[in-house]
Amino acid sequence: MRFSLFYEHQLPRPWEHGEEHRLYKDALEQIEIADRVGFDHVWLVEHHFLEEYSHSSAPEVFLAAASQRTKRIRLGHGIVQLPPNVNHPARVAERVATLDLVSDGRVDFGTGEASSSAELGGFGVRRTEKRAQWEDAIDAITRMFVEEPFAGWESKYLQMPPRNVIPKALQKPHPPLWVACSRRETIHFAARNGIGALSFSFVEPEDAAKWTGEYYRIIESDECVPAGFAVNANVTVVLPMMLHEDEAIAIDRGIDGAHFFGFALAHYYGTTPHDPGRTDVWAEFQERRAARGFDRDQIIANAEALNVNVGSLRGAVGTSEQVIDLVRRYETAGVDQIGFVLQSGPNRHEHICESIELFGKAVMPHFVEGRQEREAAKAERLAPAIEAALARRAPARKVPPGYRIDEEAELARARRARRSGRPAGLRPALVLVREEARSTARRRVQRGLSRLVRGRSDAEIERRFGPRAQRVFFAGMARQYDPSMAAGFEGELEFRLNRLDGTQTAWTIQVREGRARSRQGEAREPAITIVTGTGDFLRTLSGDANPATLLMDGRLKIRGNLELAPKISEMFGGPSPY
Amino acid sequence: MRFSLFYEHQLPRPWEHGEEHRLYKDALEQIEIADRVGFDHVWLVEHHFLEEYSHSSAPEVFLAAASQRTKRIRLGHGIVQLPPNVNHPARVAERVATLDLVSDGRVDFGTGEASSSAELGGFGVRRTEKRAQWEDAIDAITRMFVEEPFAGWESKYLQMPPRNVIPKALQKPHPPLWVACSRRETIHFAARNGIGALSFSFVEPEDAAKWTGEYYRIIESDECVPAGFAVNANVTVVLPMMLHEDEAIAIDRGIDGAHFFGFALAHYYGTTPHDPGRTDVWAEFQERRAARGFDRDQIIANAEALNVNVGSLRGAVGTSEQVIDLVRRYETAGVDQIGFVLQSGPNRHEHICESIELFGKAVMPHFVEGRQEREAAKAERLAPAIEAALARRAPARKVPPGYRIDEEAELARARRARRSGRPAGLRPALVLVREEARSTARRRVQRGLSRLVRGRSDAEIERRFGPRAQRVFFAGMARQYDPSMAAGFEGELEFRLNRLDGTQTAWTIQVREGRARSRQGEAREPAITIVTGTGDFLRTLSGDANPATLLMDGRLKIRGNLELAPKISEMFGGPSPY
Repeated sequence: MRFSLFYEHQLPRPWEHGEEHRLYKDALEQIEIADRVGFDHVWLVEHHFLEEYSHSSAPEVFLAAASQRTKRIRLGHGIVQLPPNVNHPARVAERVATLDLVSDGRVDFGTGEASSSAELGGFGVRRTEKRAQWEDAIDAITRMFVEEPFAGWESKYLQMPPRNVIPKALQKPHPPLWVACSRRETIHFAARNGIGALSFSFVEPEDAAKWTGEYYRIIESDECVPAGFAVNANVTVVLPMMLHEDEAIAIDRGIDGAHFFGFALAHYYGTTPHDPGRTDVWAEFQERRAARGFDRDQIIANAEALNVNVGSLRGAVGTSEQVIDLVRRYETAGVDQIGFVLQSGPNRHEHICESIELFGKAVMPHFVEGRQEREAAKAERLAPAIEAALARRAPARKVPPGYRIDEEAELARARRARRSGRPAGLRPALVLVREEARSTARRRVQRGLSRLVRGRSDAEIERRFGPRAQRVFFAGMARQYDPSMAAGFEGELEFRLNRLDGTQTAWTIQVREGRARSRQGEAREPAITIVTGTGDFLRTLSGDANPATLLMDGRLKIRGNLELAPKISEMFGGPSPY
Repeated sequence: MRFSLFYEHQLPRPWEHGEEHRLYKDALEQIEIADRVGFDHVWLVEHHFLEEYSHSSAPEVFLAAASQRTKRIRLGHGIVQLPPNVNHPARVAERVATLDLVSDGRVDFGTGEASSSAELGGFGVRRTEKRAQWEDAIDAITRMFVEEPFAGWESKYLQMPPRNVIPKALQKPHPPLWVACSRRETIHFAARNGIGALSFSFVEPEDAAKWTGEYYRIIESDECVPAGFAVNANVTVVLPMMLHEDEAIAIDRGIDGAHFFGFALAHYYGTTPHDPGRTDVWAEFQERRAARGFDRDQIIANAEALNVNVGSLRGAVGTSEQVIDLVRRYETAGVDQIGFVLQSGPNRHEHICESIELFGKAVMPHFVEGRQEREAAKAERLAPAIEAALARRAPARKVPPGYRIDEEAELARARRARRSGRPAGLRPALVLVREEARSTARRRVQRGLSRLVRGRSDAEIERRFGPRAQRVFFAGMARQYDPSMAAGFEGELEFRLNRLDGTQTAWTIQVREGRARSRQGEAREPAITIVTGTGDFLRTLSGDANPATLLMDGRLKIRGNLELAPKISEMFGGPSPY
């Protein structure tokens, strides 16, 4: 088990001149302590325009500063947003390599697609294309690390002639790759690409075992076609943390931060209206926390909360004994690294420093013994599979000698390539075809749903989506069922759609032997029951509403196996948020 | 007078794994010394794909590392390439602000347009549009620093909805702005925009006086419409340096680096063919240095060389006494800062460290006394003009409350804005009109010339550009004469165009009272005589050949006032390299 700190650089309003400065300086001090007491990584997100939730918009700069204040801790540059409108792939390769040089080879390179409306709208990235852009960019970037010169690129998203992208990273072939997994299903995606999974969904240890199992099964299977030129087989989960030997003090110091984190996340990744420069997320949190189950007193009164991680967002807020137990359970579940969020919401610098010190003294030593041997055994076990996987990756290319830089010809060629609109670069044809088919189906469903709900009131949606339309819809949903996204689930999903007049219609989808069937009526033994308004139901599936927000607002109720809820959209060809 | 170090991160071939690492670590150590002995700034360039010449492709990362190794030295992030294809303007604002926070407000923000074919072709930036892109981007970026939220942008080059770009810089309203001036004429451009001039042309002290005079005259005139929300009135020149109390040792240690710098610069900014990942610039330098006047022994034998700065590229390579004298002369000329290049070519780390130490001990103390008073007096003198200039700058905007982030609507709006193709953002109409007219004329001339020379041999050009065509050409050139770019020059320019058959035709352009006239024949009292092949002459004016390279190759000879040579293209509506 490896341990890391995870930073968003949160800053609840109101803020004054000088507070962002203080925030950054404090974080550097905290990281210095973490390095000294033995933390393995520090992760810095890249987010843009997400006021209060994340003021970490240039982690490449912050991490470079941290590199000179630390000796051993690895620098997690994650996640870098790969759509070329946000970061030109060559600039990403240059920055990662430069950071690797100034830090003596301590970079981990986390990648993602960007997901909030603030970021996608701000940089002009289409939600339906971001996955394809990620795939295109990561292939190009990893080639920039290993090809001398990079042999060029012509796709819809990136046109670049042959150039030697310099400097090269110190770590060979390149720093370890990770991908952000906002939903547990995305862990499969990480495994298929042979890269580390940075899971941001707060997952219970006992459920984590299922996901790590799936992850390593795929890593060792033919499904794994590495995105880079090395495989990084690791699963990291992220949890809030605050440590004190008196549990009440730990909760008092850490619970507001943990809950604000969850609240602000839902704010930006849901459909809550945001007025740039004006919306006060902290004030909204104060006003609505109790109604959303984030009541401070309630949590403090509930000493069992530590064991009800999902939903409670308490995570590792507690005593060292409690946290040792929690970490042990994740370790048993096969999780490789836990990333702790201490800097969040109003959490105080001195408490964070104290927690880091205490963690180093009281928790860490329990997980060091035998670690080297365990990691060596894992590496040995995976070695043949990784070698086979790397053989499936399209190799580095060579440019024949005699290429000449010619700006005019290159610009003309780039224009032609852009117009021809090839959807992606040079990934292995198999992967490309599989992913394209999937994303086309997804787009089709999403577009249909969006047309139904965009800008319409609940009453209007109900008029258009009456019982007959619902029958067609659930039949279609069952047809869109994708067993590869279902992770072996079998059973009944029950949907109860409320109308404004107080009546309700129930629908059941039965999944068995890789197929799904729909029928009207209640389920006999529902694995999960979803109760919500007709309008909100469609909005959720089309990506126009965030289920987390609906849950908090009491507009969505889930009974049964909560684990299934976030999976439903992808299981039936819906969009993925990452 | 202020002193700075200037880094390209040069690395002559052949290089092996680990050498880029060593290069970066050495530079950090050098900067630590510079900070300790009292250097005021360290400048780091941003260049892409320029193997050997510059491995500094992510200066934001390197400078952030330097920020934690130093206490007082200012961090010159210059120049950042502003075309949005290279760096999205929001990402530039974020990085500059983050660097300002981690360095406690020590950033200077240098800007430029990118200029080499390797970079323009690599990122798909059209040479004819880069000036317009710079103007558009710097306006947007400085607004991102001061507008809360940034009120959005719709131009041909940048489409962005309202967003609060965070974090904000520590320095208010934003870090001081600079612009790269590859040619002395660009200093006027810097002054018109109210920003510091970073002059990369090696200019003699006595000639510098003319340029600083012009610079400050414009700063204090109505012509100055600041690009940012603060005026940074400063002129910096850049010189090679190596210091030792024994002149012969200084030259021995520093001359190869100084000359390689010039040679590699000409390589990338001229028309020398470059095969990415293969061309060996260092080997070419070794082979051709003598033929180009970079003969090592010749320089060492010429003790007067220090005073023949232009062309010799010796700069401040010498004893502390010589350098004190040189600095004094630049000071008298009104130069505000000298940026010294020590890390270049094969120059050795230990010699660089020694030079920096010696400079701090033997040179710097001579320029500290009274500096504070002089700078205060200058600030006081300029204050009214700066206040008046800032009143001419279009102010920060306010977004009315109630804006809502809406990814789909924003993407659609961006597409419309991009299609409508407005050439630039929201700059004051006057500046826009003036600059557009100028750049349209430039483009027209350049296109015409390019058609004549691109891909044609000397013989072909001579056939098409016989005496009759030459007459039409010089008459047209005289008509394109732009007095605002001539800095008050009056006199005769003589052009002697050689043909392959050994014959020559002379043309004279006479400039007087703001007008230019052309005639066939030699000049009576030429201010300058330019002798070159007919083909090379046209290639130079069209931007297809670099006069520095032609000079070094002996294909271009200049007699008379050498200062005039680089000015001719702009004086007659030709393109500017920056």
